Amino acid sequence: MAIKVDEAVLEEQLYDDLARANALPLWKIASLMTPEPTTRIIPHIWRWSELEPLLQRSGELVPIERGGERRALQLANPGLGGEWATTDTLVAAVQLLLPAERAPAHRHSPSAIRFIMEGEGAYSAVDGERCIMMPGDLVLTPNFTWHDHGNDTDHRVIWMDGLDVPFVRALNSVFFQPWKEVGFPTTRPDNNSLTLYGSGSLQPTWARPQTDYSPLLVYPWTQTEQALRSMRGVEGSPFDGVALQYLHPHTGGPVLPTIDCWIQSLAPGSHTKAHRHTSSVVYHVHQGSGFSVIDGRRFDWQRGDYLVIPQWAWHEHGNDGDEEAVLFSIQDSPIHKSLGLYREEVFETAGGHQEVTGRFDG
Amino acid sequence: MAIKVDEAVLEEQLYDDLARANALPLWKIASLMTPEPTTRIIPHIWRWSELEPLLQRSGELVPIERGGERRALQLANPGLGGEWATTDTLVAAVQLLLPAERAPAHRHSPSAIRFIMEGEGAYSAVDGERCIMMPGDLVLTPNFTWHDHGNDTDHRVIWMDGLDVPFVRALNSVFFQPWKEVGFPTTRPDNNSLTLYGSGSLQPTWARPQTDYSPLLVYPWTQTEQALRSMRGVEGSPFDGVALQYLHPHTGGPVLPTIDCWIQSLAPGSHTKAHRHTSSVVYHVHQGSGFSVIDGRRFDWQRGDYLVIPQWAWHEHGNDGDEEAVLFSIQDSPIHKSLGLYREEVFETAGGHQEVTGRFDG
Amino acid sequence: MAIKVDEAVLEEQLYDDLARANALPLWKIASLMTPEPTTRIIPHIWRWSELEPLLQRSGELVPIERGGERRALQLANPGLGGEWATTDTLVAAVQLLLPAERAPAHRHSPSAIRFIMEGEGAYSAVDGERCIMMPGDLVLTPNFTWHDHGNDTDHRVIWMDGLDVPFVRALNSVFFQPWKEVGFPTTRPDNNSLTLYGSGSLQPTWARPQTDYSPLLVYPWTQTEQALRSMRGVEGSPFDGVALQYLHPHTGGPVLPTIDCWIQSLAPGSHTKAHRHTSSVVYHVHQGSGFSVIDGRRFDWQRGDYLVIPQWAWHEHGNDGDEEAVLFSIQDSPIHKSLGLYREEVFETAGGHQEVTGRFDG
Amino acid sequence: MAIKVDEAVLEEQLYDDLARANALPLWKIASLMTPEPTTRIIPHIWRWSELEPLLQRSGELVPIERGGERRALQLANPGLGGEWATTDTLVAAVQLLLPAERAPAHRHSPSAIRFIMEGEGAYSAVDGERCIMMPGDLVLTPNFTWHDHGNDTDHRVIWMDGLDVPFVRALNSVFFQPWKEVGFPTTRPDNNSLTLYGSGSLQPTWARPQTDYSPLLVYPWTQTEQALRSMRGVEGSPFDGVALQYLHPHTGGPVLPTIDCWIQSLAPGSHTKAHRHTSSVVYHVHQGSGFSVIDGRRFDWQRGDYLVIPQWAWHEHGNDGDEEAVLFSIQDSPIHKSLGLYREEVFETAGGHQEVTGRFDG
Repeated sequence: MAIKVDEAVLEEQLYDDLARANALPLWKIASLMTPEPTTRIIPHIWRWSELEPLLQRSGELVPIERGGERRALQLANPGLGGEWATTDTLVAAVQLLLPAERAPAHRHSPSAIRFIMEGEGAYSAVDGERCIMMPGDLVLTPNFTWHDHGNDTDHRVIWMDGLDVPFVRALNSVFFQPWKEVGFPTTRPDNNSLTLYGSGSLQPTWARPQTDYSPLLVYPWTQTEQALRSMRGVEGSPFDGVALQYLHPHTGGPVLPTIDCWIQSLAPGSHTKAHRHTSSVVYHVHQGSGFSVIDGRRFDWQRGDYLVIPQWAWHEHGNDGDEEAVLFSIQDSPIHKSLGLYREEVFETAGGHQEVTGRFDG
Repeated sequence: MAIKVDEAVLEEQLYDDLARANALPLWKIASLMTPEPTTRIIPHIWRWSELEPLLQRSGELVPIERGGERRALQLANPGLGGEWATTDTLVAAVQLLLPAERAPAHRHSPSAIRFIMEGEGAYSAVDGERCIMMPGDLVLTPNFTWHDHGNDTDHRVIWMDGLDVPFVRALNSVFFQPWKEVGFPTTRPDNNSLTLYGSGSLQPTWARPQTDYSPLLVYPWTQTEQALRSMRGVEGSPFDGVALQYLHPHTGGPVLPTIDCWIQSLAPGSHTKAHRHTSSVVYHVHQGSGFSVIDGRRFDWQRGDYLVIPQWAWHEHGNDGDEEAVLFSIQDSPIHKSLGLYREEVFETAGGHQEVTGRFDG
Repeated sequence: MAIKVDEAVLEEQLYDDLARANALPLWKIASLMTPEPTTRIIPHIWRWSELEPLLQRSGELVPIERGGERRALQLANPGLGGEWATTDTLVAAVQLLLPAERAPAHRHSPSAIRFIMEGEGAYSAVDGERCIMMPGDLVLTPNFTWHDHGNDTDHRVIWMDGLDVPFVRALNSVFFQPWKEVGFPTTRPDNNSLTLYGSGSLQPTWARPQTDYSPLLVYPWTQTEQALRSMRGVEGSPFDGVALQYLHPHTGGPVLPTIDCWIQSLAPGSHTKAHRHTSSVVYHVHQGSGFSVIDGRRFDWQRGDYLVIPQWAWHEHGNDGDEEAVLFSIQDSPIHKSLGLYREEVFETAGGHQEVTGRFDG
Repeated sequence: MAIKVDEAVLEEQLYDDLARANALPLWKIASLMTPEPTTRIIPHIWRWSELEPLLQRSGELVPIERGGERRALQLANPGLGGEWATTDTLVAAVQLLLPAERAPAHRHSPSAIRFIMEGEGAYSAVDGERCIMMPGDLVLTPNFTWHDHGNDTDHRVIWMDGLDVPFVRALNSVFFQPWKEVGFPTTRPDNNSLTLYGSGSLQPTWARPQTDYSPLLVYPWTQTEQALRSMRGVEGSPFDGVALQYLHPHTGGPVLPTIDCWIQSLAPGSHTKAHRHTSSVVYHVHQGSGFSVIDGRRFDWQRGDYLVIPQWAWHEHGNDGDEEAVLFSIQDSPIHKSLGLYREEVFETAGGHQEVTGRFDG
């Protein structure tokens, strides 16, 4: 008995000494190796009906120059208690630019995409080239490219931002630099990248930049819509319907090394099967309405809404409306795939459909 | 003196013995290591005005089933004395399919492309999928895919063939197989590859074949024309004008591992600079007229003509007409580039233009 | 005036409403976009003279089966307040296996390496193949391979562990699975991977697994030492001396997709120049002694010590002893390089050497 | 009847006109599309007992400066009637350098390898770096690198040459340049590439040339022998025994983009199964004796002999001696594999062994 007590005392002393030596005993913390991914990220919908008035009020009260040089509402995952993150790796936001406003130039190591929601003709300038924005366009701001935004039209412009900020912060690799002068010079014709690289399967032989991000900076909605239209009737993926990946035309890979972008069409009456993967997704409803079932809970969404699917959460999608539903999304799968950490699992039982045991009414 | 004689005799004996032993003395043949590439391939134009009547006469006299199962005139380089080759690696041809004709199914290890010259609505079927042919379309027949051609329209159809037959023959790697049954089954919808992979920068996430050739089997002229139109005013390459490469959408590389395809626009009044490369090119004039200067000789070409540029020949192009000239071409550069044998040299003197010392009047 | 007050009130109301809506105003948080990486990770040395007695005491008090199934002391970065991490992405540890002990089989999505410090002849078994451990050997346990460790010798065995646990946890992609049965079956000869893939520049033609991790699971010290010896006198890198990367023999890349391993020799009297990079490093001193200057502070190290260099910290190394110093290290650079986030900067002033303004005396 | 005659006449006229127009009717030549590869290359053995005296006589009669600047006997495939080729793509040769001789510097676009047969200590200098030659060493002379050979020892040196001359000539991409000055400068230490890149699985972090050929220019026999020894008892490939590929350490691919090099061990009593592939092979017997069965004919070989296996020929190997047989070989498979033209077929019947119906007694 006495010896036992001694051992317990000795062990406590050991733990004290380990703590002082900055050495953690694995046997005390090994439960952090969980059988499956656990995350504080929760599935959630941000309603456009709620976001839009907030964005409009921000426009009335907060000048563009304030703080971050952008009037953008970051979609903070409710599971994280106010952190700047929608998933562990990605953050989505909605940004407003009023007529005559200019968001000043800067650059940063996190990469960004914009998906235009409302307003025609404003621009996002990347390294001195203006990308003209039309609703449904995807615009890229790759890692450490200078960029500013301007609205010379007479109406407000709103877009979705998608960035890998949480991931780059987790790596502690954030670099940020403001442009010191007034105005960033325009050095190339508007939509120059679209002129050169926009024709998809035909590419210039004399100009082929060697970048890990796509040289095409604007993916216009006209092309996207045409692609979706031409696939009408195609069955597509059992899990995602007609889901198309925006492509880096010179590699066939994702448009950015850390962010994959998809456009996805769900036909009226369609209902996909459930699966899960180690990557996370933020959806934006570009058109129509429908629902997703995430880990057994049903999330109904409508045009303009934002929906987050945490990693390793079971999910399936349905369209119970009369109109084609079109979802745009950002995904962190390139991170997982590049590093051997991507996994996917199919929901095998009940014909691939989860039992619905709850409903999101946020 | 006497000893000298003996040595010469001994050396002759040596050469006799070497020949018997199938051993060549390098010092007798080393001149085959030439300072620069030499070739029997010569630059040449095949006039459409001459080819077309010959093709038409072939149509009247020779049934489709005869011999090679195809009514095609192979453009034999005049430097080769009747060999089946337009360059050392490539062969171009013109093929005619009359109304109600079917060219039977077969497959072969040489890869092929078709570029449609005349006639709408015939098809080239690849592995059970019909690619509908319109003028200006590029259609692929990759290595060892089953293919047949059919014309169910009421007019003749003519296209350019491009194959790597001379190269595959040089490697002695020709495999050929006729389809034994009557008719090859149709297993996929018409233009299925165009539906799935035709939108260029948006690609299906659920269907990504891992082939070294492009999964997109038809590159329609409507898209090509639009790409050229959107680049109007772009300067392009100093040597080739607005020269676009048809792309394997999943690799960003050439459409076939051995054959690169280009479409090239020369604005009226333009005149490119001269360069040369180890790869060879066969041009087909899709639109307009102009000229090329090849190793100091001027070759004037018109719509429908075929022009061959041998490897390592200096060449430059000009458009002295009033209309945009559009050239389609096949190139063997992927062979050279894959194997470390590609080289290019710029013509540095006289502002990049060769002195013209002759004119092709074939 | 009154209006101003109203605006402030309205703005506060806005922020309340935003918080309720899980929407963060970017202009309030944009300072998180720092000009340069900031990190809580601090440079630190864990002294072997301190770790060794703690490890020995753990061996006396804590049975191998306890908790994490491994008797390993995790080097917790002092800047993180007790988190399981040595850098933002990597964790290093020291592990002890006593005679007759067996650490039970399990597998996990974090990848691991072992670098043997003491004891000959124990084994680490990977997917049913025992890798026999000798001091200085590097042994791999790739992502989700089954592994157990055993010591059938009559002396204790100690090794360094290196894992990407913090990174995989940041991605919330941890999967862990214990082996349910007693004992993991041995299915291949001991050191089979060394037999097949160990000869470096000669590789089997009949066995070439397609894995993103190296098929070679043991890199024996005998080969490492010979490589270092053959380079004696070579100047190597200005920043790292004769620094060699352990190679995936079939890709020429790092041994694991997330962890690069280096062996590094500093000749007596050598002193490298300073640089910094976005990747972090954990060093283990395999032989000799010397010092590093990190962000202006001098860290003296000796055989057995562990040293962490945070990302984006200036660092240079010196050997002021009489003996060659040999450093083994793990680095997270593959993560940064795969995703376009790697950057490096050279210390340009003062001949490349930092001013030393302090000294670590931990 | 009369009409028939007319048609035949018309058709003859057509053929005349086609010939004048340099247009070949496919239906007359389509038989060149053979069901399977056909080749004039025949399997053959060059006996060392026959070659050696011829090489010695050449040494006595022909000074090194003569013609090709090399005293090398090219193994001309008997099927080709004296062409400079051992297979369609490769040529092998034996080269003799007498004491005090120097083969002058030049460079050429065909790539070369040397495999040392006899004599220690001579050198092959590549781009100013001497590779010291020992029996069994593999030395590379990549595409267009300057090289000369010197023998400062007191004994003759003999090696095997292997080049892709026939292939580069088929592409008409031969470039050759003699070094104009006397003597090529030595700019790097002897065996520098061996020092830097020779340790196989450990590679310098500061020096990583981006070349498509291996930066390691010498693969020493000591390492090769050790690799073979460590694999003793391993079964290896059913078709080739313990066949190892020499590796480009930074790509895991072949040492040259066009030539793969193998070392292959056949244990006494072993007999491999038959297969065939579109690539061709030239074997050199480094040690022991044995036999190969090629398309049903048996070829017995001994130390020093050269054996050619044409593409698409069935072949199997046996060792009916008491000693391990070691074969070095060059293969053109990288050409076929890079371009999608590689195919392999297994001999399925009779337990994988061909019926022997003849014997080579050359």
